[in-house]
Amino acid sequence: MDVTDEIERVIEARVAALMRKDAASANAVLDPAIVAFEAAGPLQIPPDRVRDNGLTQAWLDSFDEGPEITIESLTVHADGKVAFCHSLIGLKGRPLDGQKLDLKMRSTLGLRKTGGEWKIVHAHTSFPR
Amino acid sequence: MDVTDEIERVIEARVAALMRKDAASANAVLDPAIVAFEAAGPLQIPPDRVRDNGLTQAWLDSFDEGPEITIESLTVHADGKVAFCHSLIGLKGRPLDGQKLDLKMRSTLGLRKTGGEWKIVHAHTSFPR
Repeated sequence: MDVTDEIERVIEARVAALMRKDAASANAVLDPAIVAFEAAGPLQIPPDRVRDNGLTQAWLDSFDEGPEITIESLTVHADGKVAFCHSLIGLKGRPLDGQKLDLKMRSTLGLRKTGGEWKIVHAHTSFPR
Repeated sequence: MDVTDEIERVIEARVAALMRKDAASANAVLDPAIVAFEAAGPLQIPPDRVRDNGLTQAWLDSFDEGPEITIESLTVHADGKVAFCHSLIGLKGRPLDGQKLDLKMRSTLGLRKTGGEWKIVHAHTSFPR
C-alpha cells in the first residue's frame, strides 16, 4: 500500500471510531508520548490526558446527536517513517443539554511508524482567533 | 549535518530574520504552495498572502520595540525529505501605537526538502480558544 494511503487509513479509522463512540479504538493510534495542542486550552495537553479513554468516552457520550466528523482538503506528506498531514475538520452534533454545534477547525497531525504501525505523535487542532 | 540540525537551522534563520525585520529573508524559506493556518483568521491563509514580503514587512515595521521571538520545547521529526516540528513560540514587543505584547502561541511546521533545501510547506500557529 502507498504510504499516503496508509496515513489516510489511520485517519479514517480514528474518525470512524469517534463517530461510533468507541473511545478506546480512536485513542489506540495515539502515541504514548503524543504532544497535543488542542483547540481548547491549556497551551499543551498532557499525553495521559489526551489518551485517557474515560475522558474521550465522556466527551463522545455527551452527544445526543453525532458527533458527525468530516475531513476536508486532507494533504499528506510522508517519507520513510515520518509523516504529517493537514486538513479542515467539520464537527456537527447536538450535546445532550445544549444547542446544535456546527464547527470548522484546522487540524495538523504528525506521525511516526514504529513497529510497522503509524502512530500519531503530534496533534494540533485550532480555531482562528 | 544531522537532519534535525538542518531543520533547527532553518527555523533559527527565519526567527533571526524576523527579529532584524528582514521580511524577504524570513519568507524565502516558505514554499510557494504553503498551506498556512495562522493564529488570526480566516481558517486558511492563501499562499500568496503568507509569502507577501510587503505584508510581512509592514507587520515587522509596526513594532516600536521588538518583535522578540523565542522558541521553546522544539521537537523535530524527520526522515528522508519530509519533516515536521512543533514548539511553543513566545512573542514580545510593543507596537508603535499600542501596549506591550507578551504572547505565547503553539506552532507546528511541516517541511519538505526540494532541490537540496528544506522549505516550509505547512504552518499552523494558534492560541487555545
